[in-house]
Amino acid sequence: MSSSLKITDVRTIVTCPGRNFVLLKIVTESGLYGVGDGTLNGRELAVAETLREYITPLLIGRDADQIEDIWQSLFRGTYWRGGPVLNTALAAVDVALWDLKGRRAGLPVYSLLGGRTRTGALCYAHAAGETIEETTDRATVLMERGFRVVRVQTAIPGTSGTYGTAAGSVQPEDGPLVEQFEPAPYLRTIPRLFDHLRAQLGEEVELCHDVHERLTPIQAARLAKELEPHHLFFLEDPLRPEHPESFRLIRQHSTTPLAMGELFTSRWDCLPLLTEQLIDFIRCDLVHTGGITEGRKIAAIAESFQVQTAWHGPPDISPIGHAANVHLDLATANFGVQEWVEHPPEVADVIHGGPTYHDGYLNVSDAPGLGCEIDEQAAKKYPYIRGWLPVTRRADGSVHDW
Amino acid sequence: MSSSLKITDVRTIVTCPGRNFVLLKIVTESGLYGVGDGTLNGRELAVAETLREYITPLLIGRDADQIEDIWQSLFRGTYWRGGPVLNTALAAVDVALWDLKGRRAGLPVYSLLGGRTRTGALCYAHAAGETIEETTDRATVLMERGFRVVRVQTAIPGTSGTYGTAAGSVQPEDGPLVEQFEPAPYLRTIPRLFDHLRAQLGEEVELCHDVHERLTPIQAARLAKELEPHHLFFLEDPLRPEHPESFRLIRQHSTTPLAMGELFTSRWDCLPLLTEQLIDFIRCDLVHTGGITEGRKIAAIAESFQVQTAWHGPPDISPIGHAANVHLDLATANFGVQEWVEHPPEVADVIHGGPTYHDGYLNVSDAPGLGCEIDEQAAKKYPYIRGWLPVTRRADGSVHDW
Amino acid sequence: MSSSLKITDVRTIVTCPGRNFVLLKIVTESGLYGVGDGTLNGRELAVAETLREYITPLLIGRDADQIEDIWQSLFRGTYWRGGPVLNTALAAVDVALWDLKGRRAGLPVYSLLGGRTRTGALCYAHAAGETIEETTDRATVLMERGFRVVRVQTAIPGTSGTYGTAAGSVQPEDGPLVEQFEPAPYLRTIPRLFDHLRAQLGEEVELCHDVHERLTPIQAARLAKELEPHHLFFLEDPLRPEHPESFRLIRQHSTTPLAMGELFTSRWDCLPLLTEQLIDFIRCDLVHTGGITEGRKIAAIAESFQVQTAWHGPPDISPIGHAANVHLDLATANFGVQEWVEHPPEVADVIHGGPTYHDGYLNVSDAPGLGCEIDEQAAKKYPYIRGWLPVTRRADGSVHDW
Amino acid sequence: MSSSLKITDVRTIVTCPGRNFVLLKIVTESGLYGVGDGTLNGRELAVAETLREYITPLLIGRDADQIEDIWQSLFRGTYWRGGPVLNTALAAVDVALWDLKGRRAGLPVYSLLGGRTRTGALCYAHAAGETIEETTDRATVLMERGFRVVRVQTAIPGTSGTYGTAAGSVQPEDGPLVEQFEPAPYLRTIPRLFDHLRAQLGEEVELCHDVHERLTPIQAARLAKELEPHHLFFLEDPLRPEHPESFRLIRQHSTTPLAMGELFTSRWDCLPLLTEQLIDFIRCDLVHTGGITEGRKIAAIAESFQVQTAWHGPPDISPIGHAANVHLDLATANFGVQEWVEHPPEVADVIHGGPTYHDGYLNVSDAPGLGCEIDEQAAKKYPYIRGWLPVTRRADGSVHDW
Repeated sequence: MSSSLKITDVRTIVTCPGRNFVLLKIVTESGLYGVGDGTLNGRELAVAETLREYITPLLIGRDADQIEDIWQSLFRGTYWRGGPVLNTALAAVDVALWDLKGRRAGLPVYSLLGGRTRTGALCYAHAAGETIEETTDRATVLMERGFRVVRVQTAIPGTSGTYGTAAGSVQPEDGPLVEQFEPAPYLRTIPRLFDHLRAQLGEEVELCHDVHERLTPIQAARLAKELEPHHLFFLEDPLRPEHPESFRLIRQHSTTPLAMGELFTSRWDCLPLLTEQLIDFIRCDLVHTGGITEGRKIAAIAESFQVQTAWHGPPDISPIGHAANVHLDLATANFGVQEWVEHPPEVADVIHGGPTYHDGYLNVSDAPGLGCEIDEQAAKKYPYIRGWLPVTRRADGSVHDW
Repeated sequence: MSSSLKITDVRTIVTCPGRNFVLLKIVTESGLYGVGDGTLNGRELAVAETLREYITPLLIGRDADQIEDIWQSLFRGTYWRGGPVLNTALAAVDVALWDLKGRRAGLPVYSLLGGRTRTGALCYAHAAGETIEETTDRATVLMERGFRVVRVQTAIPGTSGTYGTAAGSVQPEDGPLVEQFEPAPYLRTIPRLFDHLRAQLGEEVELCHDVHERLTPIQAARLAKELEPHHLFFLEDPLRPEHPESFRLIRQHSTTPLAMGELFTSRWDCLPLLTEQLIDFIRCDLVHTGGITEGRKIAAIAESFQVQTAWHGPPDISPIGHAANVHLDLATANFGVQEWVEHPPEVADVIHGGPTYHDGYLNVSDAPGLGCEIDEQAAKKYPYIRGWLPVTRRADGSVHDW
Repeated sequence: MSSSLKITDVRTIVTCPGRNFVLLKIVTESGLYGVGDGTLNGRELAVAETLREYITPLLIGRDADQIEDIWQSLFRGTYWRGGPVLNTALAAVDVALWDLKGRRAGLPVYSLLGGRTRTGALCYAHAAGETIEETTDRATVLMERGFRVVRVQTAIPGTSGTYGTAAGSVQPEDGPLVEQFEPAPYLRTIPRLFDHLRAQLGEEVELCHDVHERLTPIQAARLAKELEPHHLFFLEDPLRPEHPESFRLIRQHSTTPLAMGELFTSRWDCLPLLTEQLIDFIRCDLVHTGGITEGRKIAAIAESFQVQTAWHGPPDISPIGHAANVHLDLATANFGVQEWVEHPPEVADVIHGGPTYHDGYLNVSDAPGLGCEIDEQAAKKYPYIRGWLPVTRRADGSVHDW
Repeated sequence: MSSSLKITDVRTIVTCPGRNFVLLKIVTESGLYGVGDGTLNGRELAVAETLREYITPLLIGRDADQIEDIWQSLFRGTYWRGGPVLNTALAAVDVALWDLKGRRAGLPVYSLLGGRTRTGALCYAHAAGETIEETTDRATVLMERGFRVVRVQTAIPGTSGTYGTAAGSVQPEDGPLVEQFEPAPYLRTIPRLFDHLRAQLGEEVELCHDVHERLTPIQAARLAKELEPHHLFFLEDPLRPEHPESFRLIRQHSTTPLAMGELFTSRWDCLPLLTEQLIDFIRCDLVHTGGITEGRKIAAIAESFQVQTAWHGPPDISPIGHAANVHLDLATANFGVQEWVEHPPEVADVIHGGPTYHDGYLNVSDAPGLGCEIDEQAAKKYPYIRGWLPVTRRADGSVHDW
């Protein structure tokens, strides 16, 4: 090992510039470094503790060039593997090591991954409203800003705090908001939303909708079938993640394209959906699924079965995580689309760089690595604030997936 | 909710009386309480952080009677679910709530679970040696102590630090031991071990062997086939946990009974092995798989497919976790066998109660709940000491499963 | 065994307070007791004979705490197992033992089963008419009483004595009524029924329809497909129970939710429908399927495949059986809906307690056990009266399923 | 595009320093270059013609950084895709571009691929004899040279020119040698070969045997089963490549590890063998399968199903192709073994660098790129000589696979 590659410092940075982020900086003896993102919304400190107590000691003294070996040693080598906490910590390391390798090579990460396959990454943004009309208005605003693909959500009449609408995005410090979900009004409302959207916006704009894992297989099959005439770009996350074979039922009833994956944490979770071609877009969160190393393998499997990538891109991963998404997007032949949201302005105090939006597409600079820097002093100005994701209950008070 | 059931305090206790344990005590307004175990060896503080920062606030004020609802709300309701860290934290809560319910009812937990189905839980202990002869001697000692089932491991000539032998059980503070594994000498040695054992010990003693997830499917198929004449009680954990369908290959080549599961963390991990009857014993760790609530559901599915339970019972779960195992064992029609190890004597300073061994069987008292108490003052005398599980590498230096 | 748990008396009570019921009371040495229901409509005395002659002697002297062991010994242990007569007798014992355990613990049965997961059990009632209009009127009445889910049946023009309508509920003493069934008019009528219902009642009310096992697979596939636009809550029991794989044909043609199960008598009957996700609601009758012990296991399997429970709740099981349903409903995460009918007023003379209806939901009291008592003296006032279920024939006189 | 990355020259070099090689050099405007291998034994000029006439014009002016895009454009983008000629030409380009990217970054290719996962690549060499004894002697020589894995072939008595023996390696200019193959003597001889080898060489040496695609499925199943006691490292290429599902028959009868792939030319050829786990080693030739880009994707899929890589490494690919193998080997977690042969000494006049053998393992230098250079002047000294691969016929004169 070249001494310049010997890892001598691993710094876990928890900060809240408007959103909580768990950031990682891996530094080698020569001062070469890389930055990563290990944010797991609502479980930030569990990841940070894992990184500080159990991963950092294993990294000190290691050769920063050996990304695959480090990945395998942290995944398979530590025995109790997998799940969101451990695989998010793993991703933080992996992303930082790819950034470091790019800086060392003087190349952007997308170049290391095989180079650009496209000029930019087609992206989509979120339009949500308290009414169908408001959702339509917001989609119109996004279209005017150049978005060719828009995710649409609308409040469900008679229930409170629908996911994806204003109420659902609040994460109070003192305990979770309780949202209500009932499948019947939801299943009646969404086709009406699309009826209205297509009537108002026409056929050209690509539209997605996120079910957020709340339907049973037969309910999802009904919805996908009824939405067929509206030609969705995709219907997202219709089912809970535990039993992917359930997608067979949706698949046999509809040609509505399906996307799934933000609750997956490993390649193996995706396998049945890919090998049986039960979905059209794989939507893992790179930051929760072991990073670029695992994402690239998932993309390779997906390509073989003509499934496209649509990595999760929420506000609760930092611009570093978003940069990892876009670097991989640009280098992936079977890239499909990239979810995109804007961060609060304070984020730019702490993290410099990250993807930029222009006319419907995302891009990254040609700077070495991911093109992001962490201002560790600024991070200290924004201490962690515990925030709770909402929880969902049915009308009878029973637990439902958020 | 009766005020006596309102949860008012949740205490996470990290202690190291010879082994690290993460213990949980849930207390209600009336002083009624229950104790649980959330130990994840080598990731203890990640579980503790999860319990303190993200789970305790959700429990305060809840009705301790609502175990199923709390289980679902912590699993499905918190969105990023699953994996060893979160499901171990979930198990700690679940086990404590069952203990509490038993104390409230004045009944042992096995009674709440349906009552005794047997007088005791058949158990097995570990015999390991640096040579085949030494392993045989140790098995003989166990047989003399009454054990009818013995797990046998032996050092593999030409490699260092074989799992299950003396070297493999050390967990130093300053970093992991590195063990070596090579499949070829391993595959040659184990049949010889059983040749010798059967020649020396006869046919009556039941023998198990733990592969510890280190073989490929075809290697495991060879081993299971070659061990057929020795009539193992089971061959344990032959494969990595990520792709359970791989067990098909072993299954079609051998009638050697198979056991799997200590690296699983949910019911869904087990499903293919159960519904396709690819194994004979399901060996999940209740403490890593969501506790008694999930274990009982796994047992119900397993019973339908004539798979028996053999819950993981290592020294790195506390007597409280072992008590949860045995209470469920006693109430389960399709119970198979219980792994059993003895704790260091200091453990009894901190945790009173737990299963007792007599003449090949484990049992629990008829005290209400699990029959265990935590001495919180004593726990403080044994502060947490970071300890590293070993890691395994092949002869060429590449990562292998430990 | 504590002497207080030694079973000293098992009383089988056959009574007909407007309906025939077979009730069971299990008493221990200390006077502790539990009550169960073993009613099998039209085969009451066979169950009673089984209980008195073959099961009671096996129970005397047993430990009432050992529900699982007693269940297994009566099911597997008695060799000629299964089928409606034996599994109804088994359920009577099982339900009585759970009631007894609850009384002993001072806890409602739902608490023993894991505690409440919801504030009440959503339920449905039956609306039947001689004409489509009459059915609609009766549904309206139920909606006005608060029911959110209504099962609708209507007489099929040109045939006599349609199941589920007035004629079908008479059970004369002197021999069965003969009903007529022809698939062609039936298949033409039911979509018209739903056309009318949706036009009159709107989209919000949830509607079910019970085929009562009378269609062939391809006929059922046609009906389920044609009913899709009407968004049934479920289509019930479309096929005979003997060959569950036949549901595949219905499933591949329709997103109409399917329910099945009242003719099943064990977990194993349900397995293909659950593991292949061929239905959406499992509708076993707890009283015919071995009771709470078996029902809970079925629910655990169903939960893994996102199938919900909808236990059979007809007038021919007693309030004790209904209480068992609702206790399990409240403790089950994947509860779907509960069938509910009102008993004749005389029933309350004999059985005190049982679920109560309020505004669309069922509930039980927090009394220990199931919350039901049998007035054995009152029961004697209502002696058993043989009653015949109807039989069904086709137009050519051939036998059809009732 | 940086001007330094604009491809300005693509030189196809056909040379025969003891073996025919088709080499490729891609040069950018700044003088940066990379070298590749496009050798297809016995079809060299077809590949060279493809490179010169159809691929070079598409590369001139392209951005050398865009490997993935160039790969996709040459594969999918040229319509008539696939097969050995086109995919070998594609591999030449791909390997040269990875070499170029490594030189640009100042990093060895294995670093770009994720870094080292092992200290060296375990390799095997060929031992072949006219008799079983001679094969044994040659294996002994290889073992003395440090090889831990040896491929053994022996002449089949009563037939002439067995593959893998001396006769089979001659490629005359004037037309193919005719070899004879008969399955019956072959199937009798090979088990005897292994009987002798194990008796003479012991159990520790790992042995492979190459069937060279000559058996029917049932014959291969017999052979694999009869070889089980000899514990082969793998049985190579038992079947023709056209119908991979045929491997199911072998698989269900034997635990002998199976390897397959040198006649495959794309990832899709491998899919059934990988997803059904019908083989244990995937043996594609990187130079015939689209290069490092495709090989890495195949490895990612294989890893998911616990299949290991064993890239084809014959004398008819150049040291550049072998270097590509070893760079990928070193960076691949699921690397298994690398085939290795020594080239005639003249090869070193033309190609400098390439993997080096030491004590059973292969390695590459840490020089940027692949670590190989082409001496184009020297290449001219060794003009192409047409050489014919042998052909095989059965005893009755009918065609058989070579």
